[in-house]
Amino acid sequence: MNLYAVIMAGGVGSRLWPRSRERSPKQLLNVVGEGTMIQNTIARLQPMVPFENVFIVTNRAQIDALREQVPQIPAQNLIAEPFGRNTAPCIALATVMLGERDPDGVMIVLPADHFIENVRDFQQQLNTACDAAFEMGGLVTMGITPTRPETGYGYLQVGERDGVSDHLAERGVRRVLTFAEKPDLPTAERFLASGDFLWNSGMFIWRVDAIAAALEEFLPELTEQVEELRAAVGTPRFNEALEGVYGQIHPISIDYGVMEKARNALVIRCDFGWSDVGSWDETYRLARKDDDGNSIVGDVVTVDTKGTFIRTAGKIIATVGVDDLIIVDTPDALLVCRRGESQRVQAVVDYLRRKKITSLL
Amino acid sequence: MNLYAVIMAGGVGSRLWPRSRERSPKQLLNVVGEGTMIQNTIARLQPMVPFENVFIVTNRAQIDALREQVPQIPAQNLIAEPFGRNTAPCIALATVMLGERDPDGVMIVLPADHFIENVRDFQQQLNTACDAAFEMGGLVTMGITPTRPETGYGYLQVGERDGVSDHLAERGVRRVLTFAEKPDLPTAERFLASGDFLWNSGMFIWRVDAIAAALEEFLPELTEQVEELRAAVGTPRFNEALEGVYGQIHPISIDYGVMEKARNALVIRCDFGWSDVGSWDETYRLARKDDDGNSIVGDVVTVDTKGTFIRTAGKIIATVGVDDLIIVDTPDALLVCRRGESQRVQAVVDYLRRKKITSLL
Repeated sequence: MNLYAVIMAGGVGSRLWPRSRERSPKQLLNVVGEGTMIQNTIARLQPMVPFENVFIVTNRAQIDALREQVPQIPAQNLIAEPFGRNTAPCIALATVMLGERDPDGVMIVLPADHFIENVRDFQQQLNTACDAAFEMGGLVTMGITPTRPETGYGYLQVGERDGVSDHLAERGVRRVLTFAEKPDLPTAERFLASGDFLWNSGMFIWRVDAIAAALEEFLPELTEQVEELRAAVGTPRFNEALEGVYGQIHPISIDYGVMEKARNALVIRCDFGWSDVGSWDETYRLARKDDDGNSIVGDVVTVDTKGTFIRTAGKIIATVGVDDLIIVDTPDALLVCRRGESQRVQAVVDYLRRKKITSLL
Repeated sequence: MNLYAVIMAGGVGSRLWPRSRERSPKQLLNVVGEGTMIQNTIARLQPMVPFENVFIVTNRAQIDALREQVPQIPAQNLIAEPFGRNTAPCIALATVMLGERDPDGVMIVLPADHFIENVRDFQQQLNTACDAAFEMGGLVTMGITPTRPETGYGYLQVGERDGVSDHLAERGVRRVLTFAEKPDLPTAERFLASGDFLWNSGMFIWRVDAIAAALEEFLPELTEQVEELRAAVGTPRFNEALEGVYGQIHPISIDYGVMEKARNALVIRCDFGWSDVGSWDETYRLARKDDDGNSIVGDVVTVDTKGTFIRTAGKIIATVGVDDLIIVDTPDALLVCRRGESQRVQAVVDYLRRKKITSLL
């Protein structure tokens, strides 16, 4: 069984503004712990996936910085989409490229900007997912046992083990009964209480031929469009061909386009301390805190300050009598946000975009 | 009657950190409205006190910046104390200098860093104070009708009109019954309710010979020390003589050293919208606010933000879901403080001083 990784690194992580920007997005930053998120994403695949089998799909604004951060990945494995078109086109593109090399290979699709606390457990469960994908030809997703009624994630409901062999069932492999969009809070609370709903992590494992068949069945137009690229793979005219094809493609997510319709979706219940680090609140949750509940990096003077997240950008920050704030300074922009409200940082980014203040995006 | 102004401009205003610094203190900043505080202090004496009769006592760190800000004041009228020694030595020094010129002159002593909303009323009441000082030889202080139970100011109790001539009494001149230090909150509330306690504004008006006599009576050692300077006034060795004398002087306030003991203290009840602008809370109180109660100067994006005071230093600031904060950015330091807690900014400055982070002081 040959393993390949396709790492989706095209996002901006705009709710982590002002640190995450189009040219230095979340996956290229050290947000939690050591190393940047993309570096950690690749490191935790070792030694399972050799570097030459790691493909990164990104965009033109990020590709130079990316190349510097992961020099161990061959340059031809870094693919710059001319435009972001959500996850399905990105996966279809990778499927065409890998289908040429190894249709029996197992493809691991990972977002570049997730945090995983327990790498050992992650690797063990990823191994199970690869075995299930290889043996059953199913579309395997890693489902995360929820720890709170989160309304910011999609969910999936664990189904029966029909047709799952004993040795895979024992290792936690099940059919997916249904996928659910981001719920409202009462629904999220019911999901949490039910015990059989898991967070949809956006990490997928499948054989190249299995996802190719699913794309052909559920997204035939997209499949046809990317098929035009097959002859260009590995040739100098690839980028040009990519641009022509991407101009025609409609954006669609793999969840909505394929997973929700597929009859062979499988899930593994995972518990390795996962987070999408999608907001400053989530970053605070993951960060180490002192006795006052503060998470501070940089030169900071605190007077009667509690539950506050502070990241400096060189200058000193003093806080006096404040609780439960998020303070993120950068050389050209500063965010002060109430904890629990950090989803709304998106509104700031939207405003800057409307006002075309591109230097801050 | 010749009028002289002695403007005390030696302070730092450290509770307005990070904007107010030793080298660019509060009186040299535009904190409220237009113009710097020292410029406004001098402007509101016009046309009563000619520029050549305005003396400014400051320190060496500030004198160059001061000279640039008030070029209309003759250079020899700017006196740099070698060390800060509180208000009594500063006033004694001015008394020696003016005593040489005009013992009958009336000296108006003003802090350089106060805000006055209604300049017309101020001038009218200052006129009355000058008349009272000239005619009665008393030590006149401007008492401010309190508008809240402020614990950050000293108070004085208005007494009888014994010996005050009718025409001065009609214009509000009274004897001072007693001076009171900064009270605790219950005491401040009693003061406010009583109606006969006023804020001690630190603005004094007296004849040169009257304050000279009072200094001689209550602070004879200080008087003797500054007397040594009399012969040096106006000569090239003045600064050197000043340094020698100041090295020996004990710091003491004019309130504690003279006013609390004087039997000829007078007061005028004033109502011209006075503030010492002693804190960011006070600055917020004076500032113009929008419908959400925000006072914002600079490029700021607010999302659901109320009652918040924001001053930028070039970079954009975004606030999300916050209430009642003070956010003051400068090129090398940022303050985030809960409104109502800004007295405690002093603790930040004290910390920086202990750590000898002089670049931020």
